[in-house]
Amino acid sequence: MKYPNNIKKKNKTFVSYSNRGMCLEDSINNINDYYINNDIALIYKKPTPIGIVDVDYEYSQKIIKKAYFKEPSTLDYNGLYKGKYIEFEAKETKSKTSFPLANIHEHQINHIRNILKHNGIVFLIIFINNNNYLLKGIDFINYIDNTTRKSIELSYIEKNGYLIKETINGLDYINIVDKVFLEE
Amino acid sequence: MKYPNNIKKKNKTFVSYSNRGMCLEDSINNINDYYINNDIALIYKKPTPIGIVDVDYEYSQKIIKKAYFKEPSTLDYNGLYKGKYIEFEAKETKSKTSFPLANIHEHQINHIRNILKHNGIVFLIIFINNNNYLLKGIDFINYIDNTTRKSIELSYIEKNGYLIKETINGLDYINIVDKVFLEE
Repeated sequence: MKYPNNIKKKNKTFVSYSNRGMCLEDSINNINDYYINNDIALIYKKPTPIGIVDVDYEYSQKIIKKAYFKEPSTLDYNGLYKGKYIEFEAKETKSKTSFPLANIHEHQINHIRNILKHNGIVFLIIFINNNNYLLKGIDFINYIDNTTRKSIELSYIEKNGYLIKETINGLDYINIVDKVFLEE
Repeated sequence: MKYPNNIKKKNKTFVSYSNRGMCLEDSINNINDYYINNDIALIYKKPTPIGIVDVDYEYSQKIIKKAYFKEPSTLDYNGLYKGKYIEFEAKETKSKTSFPLANIHEHQINHIRNILKHNGIVFLIIFINNNNYLLKGIDFINYIDNTTRKSIELSYIEKNGYLIKETINGLDYINIVDKVFLEE
């Protein structure tokens, strides 16, 4: 028995990536597949956390009849690169001038602090003003610990972030990870 | 709006852990909480992968009306310990003499090989014959690559595995990880 893919995608508004016919998430999923198939890295999107309320056991395959989406307390992607632990979140913003902090939940901010504490590699990928930036977790935390603003200005992202190139295989972020986290 | 926890648990048969009133999964979830709360490690159970078929958008919170369970292609738990990537699977068996290989899917075996290739820490936790053992991923792969049997004999697990102690905080496996993977 086969079902169509995650229905969430259907209802997503492809604001910024619409010209290219794909969204940031697709582009990252594509490059992650490329990394896995070419033995470069093992990085996966975590399944959406849900709470299951009701399951139907009548059929040969169990069917979930009622469930709800839980708020994520960790970031969307995690995995393994050269023995190291990597975790990151990818977000698009319609704004061309700033990244709204409401995009990252309180629990996720604590989680970023925890990853830093345990020497993991952690970052955000932010699509803003038609560019993709990798912003290190520590630079994100430093910003929010020293501001009362509700968003990160584009100028901060341009200054502290690293441009990531879109390739035919997707958003090729792993060489930036090499440069930023492993060559220090 | 709150719902009861994952309904799967209700229908699980607590065969081996029944005397203690908890299952292997609960015991690992407890110790993982302990590790997180005490800044020892960041290890989580991955959400169960599901395929969503139908979602109801009528209410303030979206409700999943139909979904199905996907077969996992990775292992149950992953996370970060001292900068390293860790992934493992936990399984109980009713058998007192061998661990049926049917417990680990083909995709998961390939995934274990991949983690080894990328220098991650990977292992199984096996509850068998009233003991919990940590069996290194490499020892698991070596076994299945050199056998036509459909199960791992207890004697192999006793010889190559490492006993893990149950504590009041749960199944305390991280000191075994230290000894086996980090002191080499």
